[in-house]
Amino acid sequence: MNIKELFDTPSELMDPTASKSAVVLITRIRLARNLAQLPFPGWSKEAQRRQAFDTCLQAVTSLPQMKRGLSFAIEELNDLEKQMLVERHLISRELSQGKAGAGLVVSRDQSCVVMINEEDHLRIQYLRAGFVFKKVWTAINALDTELENRIDYAFSPELGYLTACPTNLGTAIRASTMLHLPALVISGQMEKVVRAVNQLGMAVRGLFGEGSDASGSIFQISNQTTLGETEEGIIKHLTGVLNTIVEQELTAREKILEADAAKLFDKIGRAYGILQNGFLLSSGETMNLLSLIRLGADLGIFPEGQRAVVDRLFIECQPGHVQHAAKGEQDPSQRDLLRAEKLRQEFTRMPAPVFDKADR
Amino acid sequence: MNIKELFDTPSELMDPTASKSAVVLITRIRLARNLAQLPFPGWSKEAQRRQAFDTCLQAVTSLPQMKRGLSFAIEELNDLEKQMLVERHLISRELSQGKAGAGLVVSRDQSCVVMINEEDHLRIQYLRAGFVFKKVWTAINALDTELENRIDYAFSPELGYLTACPTNLGTAIRASTMLHLPALVISGQMEKVVRAVNQLGMAVRGLFGEGSDASGSIFQISNQTTLGETEEGIIKHLTGVLNTIVEQELTAREKILEADAAKLFDKIGRAYGILQNGFLLSSGETMNLLSLIRLGADLGIFPEGQRAVVDRLFIECQPGHVQHAAKGEQDPSQRDLLRAEKLRQEFTRMPAPVFDKADR
Repeated sequence: MNIKELFDTPSELMDPTASKSAVVLITRIRLARNLAQLPFPGWSKEAQRRQAFDTCLQAVTSLPQMKRGLSFAIEELNDLEKQMLVERHLISRELSQGKAGAGLVVSRDQSCVVMINEEDHLRIQYLRAGFVFKKVWTAINALDTELENRIDYAFSPELGYLTACPTNLGTAIRASTMLHLPALVISGQMEKVVRAVNQLGMAVRGLFGEGSDASGSIFQISNQTTLGETEEGIIKHLTGVLNTIVEQELTAREKILEADAAKLFDKIGRAYGILQNGFLLSSGETMNLLSLIRLGADLGIFPEGQRAVVDRLFIECQPGHVQHAAKGEQDPSQRDLLRAEKLRQEFTRMPAPVFDKADR
Repeated sequence: MNIKELFDTPSELMDPTASKSAVVLITRIRLARNLAQLPFPGWSKEAQRRQAFDTCLQAVTSLPQMKRGLSFAIEELNDLEKQMLVERHLISRELSQGKAGAGLVVSRDQSCVVMINEEDHLRIQYLRAGFVFKKVWTAINALDTELENRIDYAFSPELGYLTACPTNLGTAIRASTMLHLPALVISGQMEKVVRAVNQLGMAVRGLFGEGSDASGSIFQISNQTTLGETEEGIIKHLTGVLNTIVEQELTAREKILEADAAKLFDKIGRAYGILQNGFLLSSGETMNLLSLIRLGADLGIFPEGQRAVVDRLFIECQPGHVQHAAKGEQDPSQRDLLRAEKLRQEFTRMPAPVFDKADR
């Protein structure tokens, strides 16, 4: 398998058979780990970073979880390839801009990836479609244990795992989900939700993490604190908060339907019409239109199976994926044409909205 | 035939078999005439207006052109019926608000209407789909001659036909067309065109005449001067100006296609998608979307036959017609729902846009 084959293979996030829930798109956990015998990447000289890369690469590729996986030094990848890895949520923007010694190992099914020489020597990440913290925690915990047998982690009996940034110290875990919250956005409640979530010690970010915007009404919510609690405790606390937000989103949907269903149906119908017939579609507008289609599928306006189509398009309509499909770099206006062409084809196959089913 | 049957019968403007041209929607001529023996309606007492009504009604209904036609006193009509007559371009807004003695006679095919006690005792009007001044002039001239045999017109050998407003004096003719000028609107040239047309002694108005807006990029262009020239001279002069405007519109379309076809296709595709899938459509937005569909038909993006569908919908989507179809008065938000429902049905039958044919 080479990188082309990787991109030609849908990840679980794009897989139509993966289970799809109405609000939680993706569950993700990442652990930050560092080598005991070398300075953190930010303090390393190039030779030390390369040494860390070799040590980590050898250990990670030998894991059973990475059997038939792929590994790359960032230097080997072109801009488009790096962008596509970001769009699949496999690597961070930081890693994609990484210096010599930065790289990654990705499992064959693209559910597990280990970034090397990002902010820490190792950033281990698992991601799965749906609201599945137990499954993801079991998987990443097993991998971490195996890796600890191969690598001497920087660890303090008092502080726990040592990390480049003190906010990650201790468990060095970040558990997060991508939530699709269109009704909270439409009804203008997101600001209130963000404030409440922050007060509970959780962070809210956009689709592509820190500093990105919440296009498509997709928000990433994760724990902020890593110290003084067990991993299980952190996940349990986060899960409680997430359940409340899911509840609020579902209530907001019902309220909108009660107060002004026609206005919501109009938004959803127009989104379908534009996606099926538009000729120029930017990635930002596309995300917002797809968001309305996903909401329509949740409300029974489209068949349930269309949720998976939307989730795949969330990724395939990103700029990198659009260019990959066109076999080369394209300027933005050309991308908007190509994206609209792809969407016209996809939406010709999507059944027309049926509003009666959602109407009460 | 009663008024319900009149409304249930499409006028030529709504008839799919009527010939449809790319820019000129409707040709219309109206003549203002007054009775010699009574004061103009604005100066009349009610009894005089009623007397004028009776005299005119008797003369007009006896015309062969009005055989099996319909006549009404404005007082007999409810608000919705009056509104629908305006929407079919059969009567003016002024007449619909007319006092006792105001009324109309309409021919069975709805191509000819005589308004009684509007600004003048008689306003004779012919209207036909397409750019057909010769046909319309021949018809209205014949009717006027027949009527002159039955009625003593107010006429001065020096000034010609006498009218309530001096701007109509002389020939008392107003010849006009409804032009569909989307490319001149999109390319921001309409202001320039209006200025030039005004300087040539012509007036530019919106879809429903004086003071109405040009929704749907539809403009009514007519002669301003009525004195010192023959009717044929006025029509010839107007036809020359109209030919130039049609030319400019067609050139503007080509320029847009050359400069940025994708942007235009995008507008047209989105219009189709929204009309086919929207759930709330105001009459203003609908006119503008339908305008883009008509342009699409002109450019080969939709089959040519769809022009007639658009022209019918231009009328059937007006507030009065929407309420008539729903069998009663409806508030505006209910109308927007009903209009969108009708359009969803209509556009499910309309073939999807094919952009290749327009692409050069």
